[in-house]
Amino acid sequence: MPIGLLTDLYQLTMAAGYFEAGKASERATFELFVRKLPRNRNFILAAGLEQAVDYLLNLRFTPEEVAYLRTLPQFARASDAFFEMLAGFRFTGDLFAVAEGTPLFAGEPFLTLRAPLIEAQIPETYLLATIGFQSMIATKAARVVKAAIGRSVVEFGTRRAHSPEAGALAGRAAYIGGCSGTSNAETGHRYGVPVFGTTAHSWVMSFPTERLAFEQLQRLLGESTVYLIDSYDTIEGARRAAELGGPLWGVRLDSGNLVELAPAVRKILDEAGLGEAKIMATGDLNEYKIHELVAAQSPIDAFGVGTELATSADAPSLGVVYKLVELEDGAGRRYTVKLSEDKHTLPGAKQIFRYAEHDQLARSTECPSCPEGSAQAEALLRPVILGGALIEPLPKTEDARRHAAESLARLPTPCHSLFEGEDAWRVELSPELECLYERVRKGVAR
Amino acid sequence: MPIGLLTDLYQLTMAAGYFEAGKASERATFELFVRKLPRNRNFILAAGLEQAVDYLLNLRFTPEEVAYLRTLPQFARASDAFFEMLAGFRFTGDLFAVAEGTPLFAGEPFLTLRAPLIEAQIPETYLLATIGFQSMIATKAARVVKAAIGRSVVEFGTRRAHSPEAGALAGRAAYIGGCSGTSNAETGHRYGVPVFGTTAHSWVMSFPTERLAFEQLQRLLGESTVYLIDSYDTIEGARRAAELGGPLWGVRLDSGNLVELAPAVRKILDEAGLGEAKIMATGDLNEYKIHELVAAQSPIDAFGVGTELATSADAPSLGVVYKLVELEDGAGRRYTVKLSEDKHTLPGAKQIFRYAEHDQLARSTECPSCPEGSAQAEALLRPVILGGALIEPLPKTEDARRHAAESLARLPTPCHSLFEGEDAWRVELSPELECLYERVRKGVAR
Repeated sequence: MPIGLLTDLYQLTMAAGYFEAGKASERATFELFVRKLPRNRNFILAAGLEQAVDYLLNLRFTPEEVAYLRTLPQFARASDAFFEMLAGFRFTGDLFAVAEGTPLFAGEPFLTLRAPLIEAQIPETYLLATIGFQSMIATKAARVVKAAIGRSVVEFGTRRAHSPEAGALAGRAAYIGGCSGTSNAETGHRYGVPVFGTTAHSWVMSFPTERLAFEQLQRLLGESTVYLIDSYDTIEGARRAAELGGPLWGVRLDSGNLVELAPAVRKILDEAGLGEAKIMATGDLNEYKIHELVAAQSPIDAFGVGTELATSADAPSLGVVYKLVELEDGAGRRYTVKLSEDKHTLPGAKQIFRYAEHDQLARSTECPSCPEGSAQAEALLRPVILGGALIEPLPKTEDARRHAAESLARLPTPCHSLFEGEDAWRVELSPELECLYERVRKGVAR
Repeated sequence: MPIGLLTDLYQLTMAAGYFEAGKASERATFELFVRKLPRNRNFILAAGLEQAVDYLLNLRFTPEEVAYLRTLPQFARASDAFFEMLAGFRFTGDLFAVAEGTPLFAGEPFLTLRAPLIEAQIPETYLLATIGFQSMIATKAARVVKAAIGRSVVEFGTRRAHSPEAGALAGRAAYIGGCSGTSNAETGHRYGVPVFGTTAHSWVMSFPTERLAFEQLQRLLGESTVYLIDSYDTIEGARRAAELGGPLWGVRLDSGNLVELAPAVRKILDEAGLGEAKIMATGDLNEYKIHELVAAQSPIDAFGVGTELATSADAPSLGVVYKLVELEDGAGRRYTVKLSEDKHTLPGAKQIFRYAEHDQLARSTECPSCPEGSAQAEALLRPVILGGALIEPLPKTEDARRHAAESLARLPTPCHSLFEGEDAWRVELSPELECLYERVRKGVAR
């Protein structure tokens, strides 16, 4: 599918403007970051880099796309040379990024892109939507998984995702965030994520009796059998499942008061000698409800989380921005800032140094300041694409998931709160960066 | 791009189950509807049918997709015949649907799908995500446009959408809902939606001075010029724009207190003889903020609405469901219901009859009951696909937008409230439908 036009029109008019203004050869550095963590979040788990890289490596404009742009009034004054440039467009720049599965904080770049101005401008929209969405979902997943304290969480949300494709990507991001897998078969196929499923209500309803539906299911799935027991009456459904017995994995509750139903169903299963049979709960769950169920010692073994996870319902957007921080032309390098009310940016390319108990946001040219005897700080932004070429294969989705688990385990308790914690993690600016900011802010020529 | 696996795994395991249980030839009828309107909504504007139809007409399983399914433990007991059936899969059923741009209410089907059980089961996930997402965004757009009372609203949200593709679809749905257009160039190209754009902050920052940035922009865009005036200081930016003068379309405010800034900027433009220059406002806007700005008689001529619109931020998911209502096998027709707590469904295929001041949800076989002399009721569900073939080309996106505008204009004032109204629109059940429900509910064999 062509991707050239999958951007805001103004990226393309700006590109034409840079071209016509003779700025095409200027080299820009942009950073992608969040200004402020979303409500109740004390970190953001970076995800979506693989798709961002795919995009940059494959960004082209088909003849048909170029022809469409030529029809628009906004390009009436653009030259043929501009459209010819678009027709031969390739990304030739550099991309530095944090690994997928890295927890980040406000102001810290997910990625730094350095390229000729036009090549750096056009990708803004796609990169924001890709990194922003998957990071938002990976973060939500990490919260849900944390709340479940060791119980398995499976992502079930494609049907309520913002388009089928968003569902496929949400499944990937949720896996990176710690889910055991997803219900989305495409996500399984495309990204190697484990896939799971239970039974549909329509299955139960398609048989004349619930008992017959259960029997046929068991015949098909054997030990993978999960009886969906709430189609007509949950307790009766549980009795029916208990009568049939194994082989089975367990039962699923999808409606009603889980705090009351789960122990009652557990009792029915146990009394039938099905102590090994598991209970999965689904139905508008989120990290807050799971936290309550776990706190109430509800005998639930696994959670299927759909809508709230695949839409990050309590914080359904991530305020990612993509800002110009440096510009080099023949005359030298200029550092840029935006000073809009409440929307200031920091100038210059940066590096994130992660220490044991805090981060330092520094200029990209700095070395970490490690007092003698202390552990070495880790530089989180690493080169991914240089001169338009991927320097080495990206980690697989499962590697990103492992990296997330390890990184999250190192964060202190306040970061894992389901609610906003003050100073959960400290991000300080290096003296050099502060100094540059003051210098640039005072010197902004308007 | 292959779409066969873009569904929940359990749709495919259920398909295998139906196949192995000898139910493949049973003919199922499913309906897609919302149980309950989302918070603060008094209608839902149906959208997404075009993409749903594309999906049904093109649903196939590639050899690679089938091979992937064969590797999954859930299909260990499925027969070769099942996989062969998948490899030759075609949708051969019927689709009835309301036109895009039709306002609907709780319980009313967006579509009715009648097909062999397997063909009806597999599409559930994709149809829900497609119709649910676009209807949610079209509804949000209708609210924003209503709040703007005649001022133009442009959809600007791709960068915060749930993936780039969600952004492209959000642009389409927002246009159906009444927006003047979108910033997404792909949406413009693919669906013929008007595209708009202003200036990026990076454009302004890429020049040594704001003045130079404005001059170069004007040279490129002439009468389409929109100066973005908040990069450093909005009032100074406005003065700079006023000094340069025309040709220009106007200026954009993207930060700060719009209630204070808009009149101040208006005054600067007017005093410079730029009475025709327009003011566009952007920056985390939604229908509530626009309502306040309009009520305060703020001199804003156009709104660009991004994040909140493209994610329907105050109600970021739509509780669409897809439920089995009828099943025919060799022995006859059976009507089905789900009786789960708070999740009851009504049996049997339905029709929506729209009268001047209310709807009636009836059985699909009924005629509308129009008292003598009263206007004829309109049957909203119409055939779209019969026997797997599209019966006539679907209306274009712009036709859906016109249909939405006309249909919304006919709804009474309470439906247009930005907050929840009681009984904004009455949906009654026909006596025949009520009778069927009672009969089926009592007779449910478990």
